[in-house]
Amino acid sequence: MSVRVVGAGMTRFAKSDRSLKELAAEAVTAALADAGLTVADVEAAYVGNAVAGLVTGQEMIRGQVLLQPLGLTGIPVVNVENACASSSTAVYLGCQAIAAGAHDIVLCLGAEKLTHEDKSRGMAAIGTAIDLEARASLAHEAGTDLDDSSRSLFMDLYASWARAYMERTGATLDDLARVAAKNQDNGTRNPRAQYGSSVTVEEVLGAREIVAPLTLLMCSPISDGAAAVVLASERAARRLGLSGPRVAASALVSGGPHDEGDVLGTAAGRAATQAYAAAGLGPDDLDVVELHDATAPAELVLYEELALAAPGTGPELIRSGRVHHGGALPVNPSGGLLAKGHPIGATGVAQICELVWQLTGRAGDRQVEDARVGLAQNAGGWIAGDHAVGAVHILTASD
Amino acid sequence: MSVRVVGAGMTRFAKSDRSLKELAAEAVTAALADAGLTVADVEAAYVGNAVAGLVTGQEMIRGQVLLQPLGLTGIPVVNVENACASSSTAVYLGCQAIAAGAHDIVLCLGAEKLTHEDKSRGMAAIGTAIDLEARASLAHEAGTDLDDSSRSLFMDLYASWARAYMERTGATLDDLARVAAKNQDNGTRNPRAQYGSSVTVEEVLGAREIVAPLTLLMCSPISDGAAAVVLASERAARRLGLSGPRVAASALVSGGPHDEGDVLGTAAGRAATQAYAAAGLGPDDLDVVELHDATAPAELVLYEELALAAPGTGPELIRSGRVHHGGALPVNPSGGLLAKGHPIGATGVAQICELVWQLTGRAGDRQVEDARVGLAQNAGGWIAGDHAVGAVHILTASD
Repeated sequence: MSVRVVGAGMTRFAKSDRSLKELAAEAVTAALADAGLTVADVEAAYVGNAVAGLVTGQEMIRGQVLLQPLGLTGIPVVNVENACASSSTAVYLGCQAIAAGAHDIVLCLGAEKLTHEDKSRGMAAIGTAIDLEARASLAHEAGTDLDDSSRSLFMDLYASWARAYMERTGATLDDLARVAAKNQDNGTRNPRAQYGSSVTVEEVLGAREIVAPLTLLMCSPISDGAAAVVLASERAARRLGLSGPRVAASALVSGGPHDEGDVLGTAAGRAATQAYAAAGLGPDDLDVVELHDATAPAELVLYEELALAAPGTGPELIRSGRVHHGGALPVNPSGGLLAKGHPIGATGVAQICELVWQLTGRAGDRQVEDARVGLAQNAGGWIAGDHAVGAVHILTASD
Repeated sequence: MSVRVVGAGMTRFAKSDRSLKELAAEAVTAALADAGLTVADVEAAYVGNAVAGLVTGQEMIRGQVLLQPLGLTGIPVVNVENACASSSTAVYLGCQAIAAGAHDIVLCLGAEKLTHEDKSRGMAAIGTAIDLEARASLAHEAGTDLDDSSRSLFMDLYASWARAYMERTGATLDDLARVAAKNQDNGTRNPRAQYGSSVTVEEVLGAREIVAPLTLLMCSPISDGAAAVVLASERAARRLGLSGPRVAASALVSGGPHDEGDVLGTAAGRAATQAYAAAGLGPDDLDVVELHDATAPAELVLYEELALAAPGTGPELIRSGRVHHGGALPVNPSGGLLAKGHPIGATGVAQICELVWQLTGRAGDRQVEDARVGLAQNAGGWIAGDHAVGAVHILTASD
């Protein structure tokens, strides 16, 4: 696939007083400026947002509403939803449009505002990323009850997976906390991160319990934010003198049945396998990874699903220091969802932004030395015993 | 573009007691059967739905929720929203995926359930296809007030355009009614149409007034339904012995500023111009048209925007009988949105289904003789003085 990411921009992730329009405008403006392009250069836009309809009532033409004030009118605008993987799906579509020869320069935007004066709305909206008619059986699967139908089941589901993972691999509570401490530490080096602090394993374990074994610091926060990238065909990049990492692979799958413990049969596992094959690269070729640590134990599971660690050896990887700042394969140098924040529809593009900055040597204090190959993994929703969406992108540094 | 529509299926459009899952299942099953394919052949799915989030709360992974019970898991599923043009956007993406070489067989589904035991939900949801923050100025533009914020402004907007159109072209109330009577008559020949009757111009004008000059019979109804098509690459069609019309053009634009009366500068006008150029065909080459008659006067406006009639001559075209059943260029032989019904996220694919049946000689009593070239135009939402989305597809009969 001859697609390059020639511009990246994002807001700081935070609980914000700013509107979704303001957040989107900042990200789009920054991405275009980074590319050295203007609104007039954009030929199509793919916009990921997951919950604006439920949080603010703005449904159906969300992208047009965000882009029109910037003068981005007339072009094809595709509004895409795929839960927490909405904006990586937008990137997948943008790559496909360029591969089809339909466009040379496209904008991919992820934007989300989870905070609202009615605090229950954001959490209730997140809870719709399941088959609502299957809510009762999912609650049973997660070992919880249905006392509050406006409550998201996701932390219950993540807690349930964490318990199963600990049983299968021998991961300890300390291992879970090590992930959270690593990503909090990484967040201290990212000016766009919502959080970041030097917490100890003990402090992570001592934080307020959400659902055992998850404590507050093991769960991604409620965030607002936006992130945008500009994609260009190889041809346009040459013609216009644009540079940026190459998209070596863009894989999207939906979840489906797989055997217990079959780490490569999950949505993330299958998306990664497809992406490695498409890129002609493997986990040993990676220099930096951004993955979907919606909770701390999810990162351990994902080490195995992305084949960064053999099945059952996720805990060894976090204990080794290899995935820490300064290690051989830093994972979530941005702080990840846990510290950078998780404005769900914006997360996928934000991961790509981090890879762009890492692969172009512009990641400041968190720069991964000599980073040439990066992988971003984004997950969304829940269906049929798996995440509903798995998306994996592999980017390689420009020659 | 080497894409064929090798299967088409849809439910009857109606106010239905059936669930969105049941409606989607019927359409998908029929489309696959029509293609002679099975679930295992589908490599990706593009799912258009506009309001399920607001009507039922099911947001984010709507396609996965509809497709998983059919065994359609594991493949890429893209959930796309673009108001009333959601599922033509899904077809646009499906064509692009094939053109990119990413897939050979893709499913495009549009599904919508507007009815709900709380009757206000469907109408309120439709009303979100605008920039909600601009609602006050839109209401002013439409010459209405904001007495009920849950009320859709669309009929007010359509009434306002109708008045402006009548002033510009000399269209009469009878002309508006002629469109409604034609499409009601067409509906009588379509077993999948929600309505269809032999009403006179006088009866249309005598129906209950919605917003002057629109009467009930000049407005598309509230409908539930689903429609699906299977797209195949030329290569796969040859290999698997699949047949069906060729997609000669798939154009998508968003709305934007244009001069008053500049019929080719509108979203529909620009999408049509792009589609004609891509197909190497013009309005004189068309044998059959399905267009977005959300209201009767919209059809007159669209005659001009699609260059079926010169600017200002829409009324002459409806008076000529040329666009009626048995005329030289039948428009909306399915009954159109007015009689077939308008389950908004399903409408775009349903238009494509009608073209498929017309171009393969399977349209029964409503068959357009020797139909070789068909155009489908779908519009969605409202922004910046225009529809927010314009989508035009041109299909040509298989050789």
